[in-house]
Amino acid sequence: MAVASQIVTSLLQGNQRAVAKAITHVEDGTSEAEKITALLYPHTGKAQVIGITGSGGVGKSTLIEKLVRELRRGGKTVGVIAVDPTSPFSGGAFLGDRIRMQDLSTDEGVFIRSMATRNNPGGLARATMDTVRILDASGKDIILIETVGAGQSEVDIIKIAPTVVVVLAPGFGDAIQTIKAGIMEIGDIFVINKADRESADKAVINIRAMLQLGTQRGKWIPPIVKTTATTGAGVSELLEKIGEHREYLSKGEASQRQRRIVREELEEAIKRKTAEHILTALQKEGELDNLISKLLSKEIDPMSAAEEALNRILTRSKRR
Amino acid sequence: MAVASQIVTSLLQGNQRAVAKAITHVEDGTSEAEKITALLYPHTGKAQVIGITGSGGVGKSTLIEKLVRELRRGGKTVGVIAVDPTSPFSGGAFLGDRIRMQDLSTDEGVFIRSMATRNNPGGLARATMDTVRILDASGKDIILIETVGAGQSEVDIIKIAPTVVVVLAPGFGDAIQTIKAGIMEIGDIFVINKADRESADKAVINIRAMLQLGTQRGKWIPPIVKTTATTGAGVSELLEKIGEHREYLSKGEASQRQRRIVREELEEAIKRKTAEHILTALQKEGELDNLISKLLSKEIDPMSAAEEALNRILTRSKRR
Repeated sequence: MAVASQIVTSLLQGNQRAVAKAITHVEDGTSEAEKITALLYPHTGKAQVIGITGSGGVGKSTLIEKLVRELRRGGKTVGVIAVDPTSPFSGGAFLGDRIRMQDLSTDEGVFIRSMATRNNPGGLARATMDTVRILDASGKDIILIETVGAGQSEVDIIKIAPTVVVVLAPGFGDAIQTIKAGIMEIGDIFVINKADRESADKAVINIRAMLQLGTQRGKWIPPIVKTTATTGAGVSELLEKIGEHREYLSKGEASQRQRRIVREELEEAIKRKTAEHILTALQKEGELDNLISKLLSKEIDPMSAAEEALNRILTRSKRR
Repeated sequence: MAVASQIVTSLLQGNQRAVAKAITHVEDGTSEAEKITALLYPHTGKAQVIGITGSGGVGKSTLIEKLVRELRRGGKTVGVIAVDPTSPFSGGAFLGDRIRMQDLSTDEGVFIRSMATRNNPGGLARATMDTVRILDASGKDIILIETVGAGQSEVDIIKIAPTVVVVLAPGFGDAIQTIKAGIMEIGDIFVINKADRESADKAVINIRAMLQLGTQRGKWIPPIVKTTATTGAGVSELLEKIGEHREYLSKGEASQRQRRIVREELEEAIKRKTAEHILTALQKEGELDNLISKLLSKEIDPMSAAEEALNRILTRSKRR
């Protein structure tokens, strides 16, 4: 317990190194990770968590950079989580981008982290959720999460962020895949970036039409904001809308959405815990190899094998 | 049972409409889906399953188109599954691409399907795996799966395809993110597409150097094939290498890899079955809402809640 509680005590005081350590634990899925997240859980729930999503090339990263600078001017502390592998925040971008962002990373009021999952495949969504909690508990006022697309990617931003900003570029609004990927359904706020391009107004009209076709969730009508991230135009209006959405959420809608997010997470946790429990039990009895062999020889199919495994555990615990 | 067994009987005879119906069931996660996959499971394992992965814009779809044509000339039947949302096979591409591919979709020996998950979020990986099985059981000799990237996306191709082809374009080999995304570790065969560009040879050298740095899995040394998908150059050489990899797999390495794939799938199935079982039980007792409220008030953290839920079920089944 010592390691986990030391890290948590320190990160609750806002210590950046402790924050970084905690994130590494959740990324690597170490044995301390679970203790850390359990310890800091009661200290979470204060930050506003905002997902910034959109395809590559629409200018999400530059927009986030400008949002961070504007928030800092207003005295807010900010956490940035880059799940988009092509984000300059992840280091996987042009040198120029990285140099431009360097002064942000030396600001004590900003914590930037890109998520990697090499050591913990499949755990990206959970690691991202845990990182949000860590930044929240460490006292960051606003947490921005940069992801690519929706539904198709491992990190489903709507399961993590109560406010989702969808960033589009002019011309993109016409594309069929926008609707297909379900991106229209997840946005609380839409941004047409690169609004200096001439087709920007057409894009706004297209998006509005699509929004009217879709089903409305609650009473919130998603606003459409035009920005030019490179110059910073429209960024303060976007922040205003983000603030309005927070206010809207605080008036009741939040609880429903928060309930759904928490339920999803509980479901995930149950899946993990139970699978761990069952697999360990099966392995101990040598039954796992047996089941795998039966699957390979097509004697049984995976779902029936899973059912057999579950019944085995339930029966066994009865006999205990 | 009637619906499922009718579909399966028909698809085992190679009926394309039954194949399409079965895929829709697994995509939508209907109650028939599980029966269908259980019924056809004994008839699977004959097809060679090949993952074709790489970033957007490297020319995966055109390469697949050429592979399909070449395979058809050799008398092989082919299934194509597009998980990449920007693939022309998914309909989300330029009109020209779609027209070019139209004659493929009217060929009885080819079945093309893009995966959608609007009705079944989070189920993309499972639906893809089930679709592979459906195409396999329906008698397709070769199944090609088109995905984007690795690790970061919901469909981890290495968990589905015993042969993984990584497609790169010249210039891409230098990028840091290639290594970061772990794409080098999953390739059994590397393709430098757009090999008519002058930097193609440099890309081959870069890839070879990176491969030598990495850890080698087994005795297979991943070949690097240069292709120009637009003209078809290099496509038959790629098919040769794919054949060689199949031969290699058949000499023992396969069983290990197949075991790992089957084990992963069993694990997934157990997670799903158990979570279903536990959540239903909790809901019935009204305990689910109780747990969610405790999570919202931060009385408990998700992993501890999951542990509590698991223990509850194990204890209850003891008392049964």
